[in-house]
Amino acid sequence: MSEKQIPYKIYLEEAEMPKQWYNVRADMKNKPAPLLNPATLEPMTAEELGAVFCEELVQQELNETDRFIDIPDEIQSFYKMYRPAPLVRAYCLEKKLGTPAKIYYKFEGNNTSGSHKLNSAIAQAYYAKKQGLKGVTTETGAGQWGTALSMACSYFDLDCKVYMVKVSYEQKPFRREVMRTYGASVTPSPSTTTEVGKKILAEHPGTTGSLGCAISEAVEVAVSTEGYRYVLGSVLNQVLLHQSIIGMETKIALDKYGIKPDVIIGCAGGGSNLGGLISPFMGEKLRGEADYQIIAVEPASCPSLTRGKFAYDFCDTGMVCPLAKMYTLGSGFIPSANHAGGLRYHGMSSTLSQLYDDGFMEARSVEQTAVFEAAQQFARIEGILPAPESSHAIRVAIDEALKCKETGEEKTIVFGLTGTGYFDMVAYQKFNDGVMMDYIPTDEDLKPGFDSLPKVDK
Amino acid sequence: MSEKQIPYKIYLEEAEMPKQWYNVRADMKNKPAPLLNPATLEPMTAEELGAVFCEELVQQELNETDRFIDIPDEIQSFYKMYRPAPLVRAYCLEKKLGTPAKIYYKFEGNNTSGSHKLNSAIAQAYYAKKQGLKGVTTETGAGQWGTALSMACSYFDLDCKVYMVKVSYEQKPFRREVMRTYGASVTPSPSTTTEVGKKILAEHPGTTGSLGCAISEAVEVAVSTEGYRYVLGSVLNQVLLHQSIIGMETKIALDKYGIKPDVIIGCAGGGSNLGGLISPFMGEKLRGEADYQIIAVEPASCPSLTRGKFAYDFCDTGMVCPLAKMYTLGSGFIPSANHAGGLRYHGMSSTLSQLYDDGFMEARSVEQTAVFEAAQQFARIEGILPAPESSHAIRVAIDEALKCKETGEEKTIVFGLTGTGYFDMVAYQKFNDGVMMDYIPTDEDLKPGFDSLPKVDK
Repeated sequence: MSEKQIPYKIYLEEAEMPKQWYNVRADMKNKPAPLLNPATLEPMTAEELGAVFCEELVQQELNETDRFIDIPDEIQSFYKMYRPAPLVRAYCLEKKLGTPAKIYYKFEGNNTSGSHKLNSAIAQAYYAKKQGLKGVTTETGAGQWGTALSMACSYFDLDCKVYMVKVSYEQKPFRREVMRTYGASVTPSPSTTTEVGKKILAEHPGTTGSLGCAISEAVEVAVSTEGYRYVLGSVLNQVLLHQSIIGMETKIALDKYGIKPDVIIGCAGGGSNLGGLISPFMGEKLRGEADYQIIAVEPASCPSLTRGKFAYDFCDTGMVCPLAKMYTLGSGFIPSANHAGGLRYHGMSSTLSQLYDDGFMEARSVEQTAVFEAAQQFARIEGILPAPESSHAIRVAIDEALKCKETGEEKTIVFGLTGTGYFDMVAYQKFNDGVMMDYIPTDEDLKPGFDSLPKVDK
Repeated sequence: MSEKQIPYKIYLEEAEMPKQWYNVRADMKNKPAPLLNPATLEPMTAEELGAVFCEELVQQELNETDRFIDIPDEIQSFYKMYRPAPLVRAYCLEKKLGTPAKIYYKFEGNNTSGSHKLNSAIAQAYYAKKQGLKGVTTETGAGQWGTALSMACSYFDLDCKVYMVKVSYEQKPFRREVMRTYGASVTPSPSTTTEVGKKILAEHPGTTGSLGCAISEAVEVAVSTEGYRYVLGSVLNQVLLHQSIIGMETKIALDKYGIKPDVIIGCAGGGSNLGGLISPFMGEKLRGEADYQIIAVEPASCPSLTRGKFAYDFCDTGMVCPLAKMYTLGSGFIPSANHAGGLRYHGMSSTLSQLYDDGFMEARSVEQTAVFEAAQQFARIEGILPAPESSHAIRVAIDEALKCKETGEEKTIVFGLTGTGYFDMVAYQKFNDGVMMDYIPTDEDLKPGFDSLPKVDK
């Protein structure tokens, strides 16, 4: 098909939308290492996981054999309200850069959560409802995941208790109000509603909270309240499974026009978007059917893949969750306070960590002023104000396109535009005012995190 | 075509997108009254208008005869970056309401300006660029129009000077930062950059500004700066022309599935969205080819159509702009401070005013707590957090659907969902906290506005 026929935006027809999620672990020769019980250091059983997570989600978490898992009709219906997400040909950006490269992006921001997070939130809420639960608990930092879960719970008439890091609760009141509009209860963390919260408040009276503390509170409420479970928006295998909808749609859209990408780029914090975007392409690569250059992009100030260790670590700062084997900076690692661009998680999905360790993808770290320069350029040319997280992928996509300009290569570049930056204007203001700083931790800075890694002989 | 085949969202193919705007005035027997020069009370000539507005836009403003006007290729290309806007079948809302009515909404919020305003902003920026201008000036209140114009000017590499009502500038820093990210200069109004601004500051040192004052400053800068013109986001005929893209796309999408609407509903402030949405349907009605119930919805606290007078009035509070014949509450009218829902303009597009006066459409006013109840219900069921403005249309759409539930009528209802409410969370918070109030002005409250109407014998 000639290039002229490729529209600015490719929207799949409803009939073309995926009806199954793709489980990349089924095609991995080296499976991701299992979650370990922090007390026994033995693999977590389904029963143990079932105390915290919904039953069917536990099955998905442990499923390493089924390549495809049916998307229930109710979730397909919800997906139809805001999906398919468009695959956009960045004609204007290509022209401005003067590159022979062809650039596409999968835009996940056309929903009120402002990101791809809704893809897994609706699945997790559905299984909670199916199990007859009354509600779910979770934590949120910036608020994207909390918003997505609030929307999903509202749709299925489930109670939703969100523990929001206190400093975000106070500094991002608008995110909080979106969640409240969807009927969620939002509690600043640490709070007096939990034992762990009370303990932390007693020890650190002036604390503004942390994601680790909010996780601990959310988990405590889930396991101690009849009819509740805890849900998480990234890192887990089940989340990557649900997010495979991103990559599946992308692949169907590309195949429809006979386009084969050369480079696939995604930002990576816990791995939910990257894992979802690349999954069907990675599947082809694992099965030896095709080859792609796959690039994970992370902040230079939180470089888990590029500078972390591949080791068992706690998933949360509070050290109450299972241990996961992953590329990690240590659960005690906290990015510099001047880091504005999201993707702050100290570790990385076990699945992606294994794939990276096995050489199936590469990783790059980028500094935040360069990220916001790319964000501003993209906004002005392509019209969409991107989330800081997404802008990490934009940065590398532009860099790759400029390389093609030098070499004359007509590569096809696909990147994930995970969301919009409408609730991130404080960071944009710093950039607009010229006061945004870069920060690359020294080896000395990283040492305490590595020293805090648990001693696990696996 | 059977109902089952109608998807959740109808996206036109690029090839199906309109290539012309529709000029409803060509089909009106009673044309809208001309703009008058406030000094001479004679109709404004093209030359007089050309001192303030771009040449080609003046031609469009005065054009009452051409039914269709070609959309320039450059604007069509830009439209392809964020259009077609989806026409969404509100299956979930219908189910929740238990109504036999079929509800559709045209969603204009899938772009960074967050509303339909971009449709006219890009057109006005294009004609300014074509004329060889250096830049444009405008005013903005809440910031939707200013954002849209900033995006459009950035695309065409035009300077953009926005005068933002001071209270909004301070209370809505995020909107301001979006505009700055797109390269616009944003000045709080009143300012010391203009004579009129200095005069107002001298007379009212503590003033937080008004839209009328910001208009006066923007116009002063436009007429006194070489290579600049003033642009406006609503009320004018040219704006309704550009916004006809909304209705044209809607009609093509409906026709594609053989759907004939019974009721068409739009919110109305200055009339840009309503005028655009209804235009091709109104055309059929004017030509006697079809009949539709067309409903304009306005806030009870700013009821220009339902309680205003049809008379010549100033378009701005500062009384520097031409006079327009329209339904108006008087240019001195200011809605109650507790009004949070937008649509604050004291008048209404001359074209819509004439159509309303001639009985081609009806109008309803709604109170804001009822509007936010509808907004919350819609968000929870359909997933999109609507702008307060758009929620006026949602309110009446739900009311009409509930009437159908009583009567058993299977009416097809189409409404305009003009945008998203992501920058309106202060208003949502008031509603969430239960402290939002209603306000209906008494006849006594409206008297000063009516008394301020200029004496024009036309």
